[in-house]
Amino acid sequence: MTMRFGVIGTGAIGREHIKRISNKLAGGKIVAVTDVNQASAEDTLETFGLDATVYPDDKTLLADPTVDAVLVTSWGPAHEASVLAAIEAKKYVFVEKPLATTAEGCMRIVEAEIKHGKRLVQVGFMRRYDSGYVQLKEAIENKFIGEPLMIRAAHRNPEVGENYTTDMAIHDTLIHEIDVLHWLVNDDYKTVQVTYPKKSKHAHENLKDPQIVTLETEGGIVMSAEINVNCKYGYDIQCEVIGEEGVVSLPEFQSISFRKNAMFGTNVLMDWKDRFIDAYDKELQDFMDSIKLTGEPNGPTSWDGYIAAVTADAAIKAQNSGEKEQISLKEKPAFYNKQTEAVNA
Amino acid sequence: MTMRFGVIGTGAIGREHIKRISNKLAGGKIVAVTDVNQASAEDTLETFGLDATVYPDDKTLLADPTVDAVLVTSWGPAHEASVLAAIEAKKYVFVEKPLATTAEGCMRIVEAEIKHGKRLVQVGFMRRYDSGYVQLKEAIENKFIGEPLMIRAAHRNPEVGENYTTDMAIHDTLIHEIDVLHWLVNDDYKTVQVTYPKKSKHAHENLKDPQIVTLETEGGIVMSAEINVNCKYGYDIQCEVIGEEGVVSLPEFQSISFRKNAMFGTNVLMDWKDRFIDAYDKELQDFMDSIKLTGEPNGPTSWDGYIAAVTADAAIKAQNSGEKEQISLKEKPAFYNKQTEAVNA
Amino acid sequence: MTMRFGVIGTGAIGREHIKRISNKLAGGKIVAVTDVNQASAEDTLETFGLDATVYPDDKTLLADPTVDAVLVTSWGPAHEASVLAAIEAKKYVFVEKPLATTAEGCMRIVEAEIKHGKRLVQVGFMRRYDSGYVQLKEAIENKFIGEPLMIRAAHRNPEVGENYTTDMAIHDTLIHEIDVLHWLVNDDYKTVQVTYPKKSKHAHENLKDPQIVTLETEGGIVMSAEINVNCKYGYDIQCEVIGEEGVVSLPEFQSISFRKNAMFGTNVLMDWKDRFIDAYDKELQDFMDSIKLTGEPNGPTSWDGYIAAVTADAAIKAQNSGEKEQISLKEKPAFYNKQTEAVNA
Amino acid sequence: MTMRFGVIGTGAIGREHIKRISNKLAGGKIVAVTDVNQASAEDTLETFGLDATVYPDDKTLLADPTVDAVLVTSWGPAHEASVLAAIEAKKYVFVEKPLATTAEGCMRIVEAEIKHGKRLVQVGFMRRYDSGYVQLKEAIENKFIGEPLMIRAAHRNPEVGENYTTDMAIHDTLIHEIDVLHWLVNDDYKTVQVTYPKKSKHAHENLKDPQIVTLETEGGIVMSAEINVNCKYGYDIQCEVIGEEGVVSLPEFQSISFRKNAMFGTNVLMDWKDRFIDAYDKELQDFMDSIKLTGEPNGPTSWDGYIAAVTADAAIKAQNSGEKEQISLKEKPAFYNKQTEAVNA
Repeated sequence: MTMRFGVIGTGAIGREHIKRISNKLAGGKIVAVTDVNQASAEDTLETFGLDATVYPDDKTLLADPTVDAVLVTSWGPAHEASVLAAIEAKKYVFVEKPLATTAEGCMRIVEAEIKHGKRLVQVGFMRRYDSGYVQLKEAIENKFIGEPLMIRAAHRNPEVGENYTTDMAIHDTLIHEIDVLHWLVNDDYKTVQVTYPKKSKHAHENLKDPQIVTLETEGGIVMSAEINVNCKYGYDIQCEVIGEEGVVSLPEFQSISFRKNAMFGTNVLMDWKDRFIDAYDKELQDFMDSIKLTGEPNGPTSWDGYIAAVTADAAIKAQNSGEKEQISLKEKPAFYNKQTEAVNA
Repeated sequence: MTMRFGVIGTGAIGREHIKRISNKLAGGKIVAVTDVNQASAEDTLETFGLDATVYPDDKTLLADPTVDAVLVTSWGPAHEASVLAAIEAKKYVFVEKPLATTAEGCMRIVEAEIKHGKRLVQVGFMRRYDSGYVQLKEAIENKFIGEPLMIRAAHRNPEVGENYTTDMAIHDTLIHEIDVLHWLVNDDYKTVQVTYPKKSKHAHENLKDPQIVTLETEGGIVMSAEINVNCKYGYDIQCEVIGEEGVVSLPEFQSISFRKNAMFGTNVLMDWKDRFIDAYDKELQDFMDSIKLTGEPNGPTSWDGYIAAVTADAAIKAQNSGEKEQISLKEKPAFYNKQTEAVNA
Repeated sequence: MTMRFGVIGTGAIGREHIKRISNKLAGGKIVAVTDVNQASAEDTLETFGLDATVYPDDKTLLADPTVDAVLVTSWGPAHEASVLAAIEAKKYVFVEKPLATTAEGCMRIVEAEIKHGKRLVQVGFMRRYDSGYVQLKEAIENKFIGEPLMIRAAHRNPEVGENYTTDMAIHDTLIHEIDVLHWLVNDDYKTVQVTYPKKSKHAHENLKDPQIVTLETEGGIVMSAEINVNCKYGYDIQCEVIGEEGVVSLPEFQSISFRKNAMFGTNVLMDWKDRFIDAYDKELQDFMDSIKLTGEPNGPTSWDGYIAAVTADAAIKAQNSGEKEQISLKEKPAFYNKQTEAVNA
Repeated sequence: MTMRFGVIGTGAIGREHIKRISNKLAGGKIVAVTDVNQASAEDTLETFGLDATVYPDDKTLLADPTVDAVLVTSWGPAHEASVLAAIEAKKYVFVEKPLATTAEGCMRIVEAEIKHGKRLVQVGFMRRYDSGYVQLKEAIENKFIGEPLMIRAAHRNPEVGENYTTDMAIHDTLIHEIDVLHWLVNDDYKTVQVTYPKKSKHAHENLKDPQIVTLETEGGIVMSAEINVNCKYGYDIQCEVIGEEGVVSLPEFQSISFRKNAMFGTNVLMDWKDRFIDAYDKELQDFMDSIKLTGEPNGPTSWDGYIAAVTADAAIKAQNSGEKEQISLKEKPAFYNKQTEAVNA
């Protein structure tokens, strides 16, 4: 029962997933590829030794009856159309964030999926598969710290390029906190506000960095997320949940400790790609395993993609207004009320 | 050159200081005591084996020519009058917080001290003498983390009594962060805002707990201080300074580590009195040593007391308004521009 | 290029590997199984949904031309014969420890493999694939701590059953340290001595526990390994390498941290099976990947199995004599001098 | 009730204690000084502003009736005579290690003290006053880890001078572990063995470094102490006690933590003088306080000095023989069986 994948978009992330499915995970196989850059698609056959068909576009690829599921790893603005086409073709979809670039686009996918009648889509919010976040969620659900009252998160990158703009702090960086924090506490966002501390001299001219994003949930939990993409010292993801009975925090990156040069310490990652390697593996393995087991993917849903889009829009508005902005979600369809626990987490 | 102290107020804190000067520190001696409760004052002679005169009030005590310095450890509303009287009598003063209960009262002390012509007053903000904060300040001043951009602080108590009211979160709890945070970064406060997360079930009916106080400085540093006085798990003081080149944090309380019952951990204090024992010793020793060495006390000044009062007033206003409130300090007199490093830190 | 496995021994460990290859790793497939308990072998087909042939014994299984490699996961005394038969049949072998129950048995395998002309055998010493040990080895090889002078290791289990005997502290427990420590420092053992501290009241009547095993290498490195199988608090593997310029240590198990009940801590594992999960996955994936890439397995060799057997024999002798016993290895055949880095580590 | 001290030996350590008593502790005063270098003794008067008499030798100083107690801080070979003279003169004695340079010398002091009828002597083993060791002892005595079975200690210095010889690893370095480890577990030493790992290239020609000293107690506890005086990275004192129910360890030096340059860490001390500052203060304060309170000093006794001497002698023998050497103590006089808890610890 090998799951046969078509890949829509053979850029860097697409190739990572091709490698993962071909060489590292069990039960999947790449049988079809396409890319707007046809040469890139063709190149993957040799690079990864694939026995796969190269298609001119997503439509033709989706028409291939041997394709069970697609990976949508094209650039963001193309996601919506490919996902809708896949649902139309009744194929499973693993789509990288964003699900669509607008809240309306996400809703069109939600509606198409509901119309189809069962879940086909999983969005690539991999943090839910990270062992640290999984432990945090278990602690919260087991009432180990009582009701959660506050969260303090930090998302720090050593540095970013000149092309990184202030709004990308929301769309590319905070987007992961947006998904994982409401999932952790099983609550919905209500408001968002953005504060700009003193600017780092390492931030380029047009970038406001760091930023502090404060999210408030319907249940009253206040979450403060520091976005700090020129922190210099490392790629560091922190999350502390303060509850009525205690506090739990993400582990540090697992490094040997050393005593040297008058210091006792551990190494901090410099490259974000190393931080969630296991989570990337697990999200895709879980996508395959849960579909085989239950007929539906088990991870972040189209609705989660919609939440992320609405929240990011409000956060962008808050970046510009300096005010507390409302996050207005439509009512959650019952269709998405099933449990979404990671099978392999 | 023993410094001869008169003690104004022989309640719990006064007695701690009497014990400290008599049995633990070098160079001081209690020679006079007074209290509105005369019996309490008299009782200290036997309890601590003091060879001291009991006076009916602060005025008569201050008239005793053998008194070099006074400890003002009466209740807060009485501080201002005693401090002003001590300045009038040209005695050195170590006064517990608050310097005075109003900003105006603090200014009257500031003006009296300036008129006197040299510094006589030290306010009991002991955190500046804590080894952890001293290390943080050194790191900042040595530019170890570049310019500070943000601070994340937490002030957590296991629980508070029924008499602890929402405003005490500012006057009794945050007051220490107010003093130590601006000192750490050598900057002045500009605005303050208070946010109320979901209320802890452990907070009694009329208390809003936890609270998040956000302070912004003239230089743009954003400081977020969590006040959480029913956190249950311990007395925990945290402070993380995020700079352009790195981050420094207060050490955890120094405990042996243990491996037991499927856990690896350290002990967290439950009693706030144990947290700053060394700092209490050092602030008083430094008070004595710096006066002997330079003729002036070296610790937190009347001006620091004034800053604390103005900032606390604005924070109380912010508690009620929910808005960002301005912190408007008068211009700092040159008189207070000397270095205020701890001698013994 | 799927690697087709035959499994010799379908007990607990055999089943773990069947599950791993079938459901978690890429590039392998179980095509044949056998067990002295034929019903157990047959049962695996349904339990794991295998499309595999059940053979009456290792010989018939090895005769199946569709079998590329075998997993030897039978009980220890049967290993030698199966491994020799596999070499005879020119099949790749992944054999759980021990390679053989005697040093002579190990040498027979070494000789058979050399005669065959290329490496076929990998021994299941999984710690070399653990991320912590890999980081330690990198630190040592990069001269981060200069020349290693000493190692302090601990191998602690919460408790053991009544059937665990004093010699099992060597054969079943220390055996992993025996393999990984000489690998870490790229040195050979010279002597071994065993010391018995005060016995734990939790050790059953006939068991000496804890034990301290001191190994000395040809290069003079002194390694002290605490074997403590009734430590109660957890399954805890420690390793600290003390070098001329500094010290490096294994990370603690990666757990969220918590602040609760006057403690700040992390969780310690209680079940040894959770500690090296990733390493078990990686050793088998590396076995498959390296054979596909280079024609030879890349992990611990038959020679490593021989070293473990000789060292364990000397340690058992030392347990009984109380004296420092010699560890006399034959000269290492050039055949085994290739690099044995983990491909996937 | 100020305790009036005479100081016998005004070298570096003597001066540290003079400064401590004069400027930092409560209840003591230096009234007399002597040194074989009379100029040194005289110089202390001006350096520390002492109002004290300079005596030509210990005998004349001891004859001064205003002297209540003496600090013996001369060089080691002179200690015995001064201590015996002080006992003869019925003065309290705080003597730096060694109590005497031979076990016989220690016994002469023990006998003189017993003959005198009450305890007069405290030996300067300050570690018993260190907050970390005090917490370890409490944990052991509260049975928090059950019966102690093993101890792993390390005594690491960044480097030593050319004059540091192999035997000094015992007399000057291990001596502190010798005192504090038997105190921790309230047990007596039985044997000692010394092992030499690979020599560090940083050890000078005639020095064997590192060394591993293994002590076994009458109760069967095995203690392994690493002496490593060219470890380069810092001054690092470690002690881990492994018990039947768990493990407790000394805290790391209390430093702020930092995140910088791809590292997360704390600072390690480089200078041994910074490590036990608080313990030096507490031992002397306790010496004064306990004598005032009970008429006898409360800290390490002459008998502890004797234990240290006998154990060190055996360890030196073990350094040379390579064998396990017996530690043969005389029977402990009932005179020394009182509680020796630190009052101020």
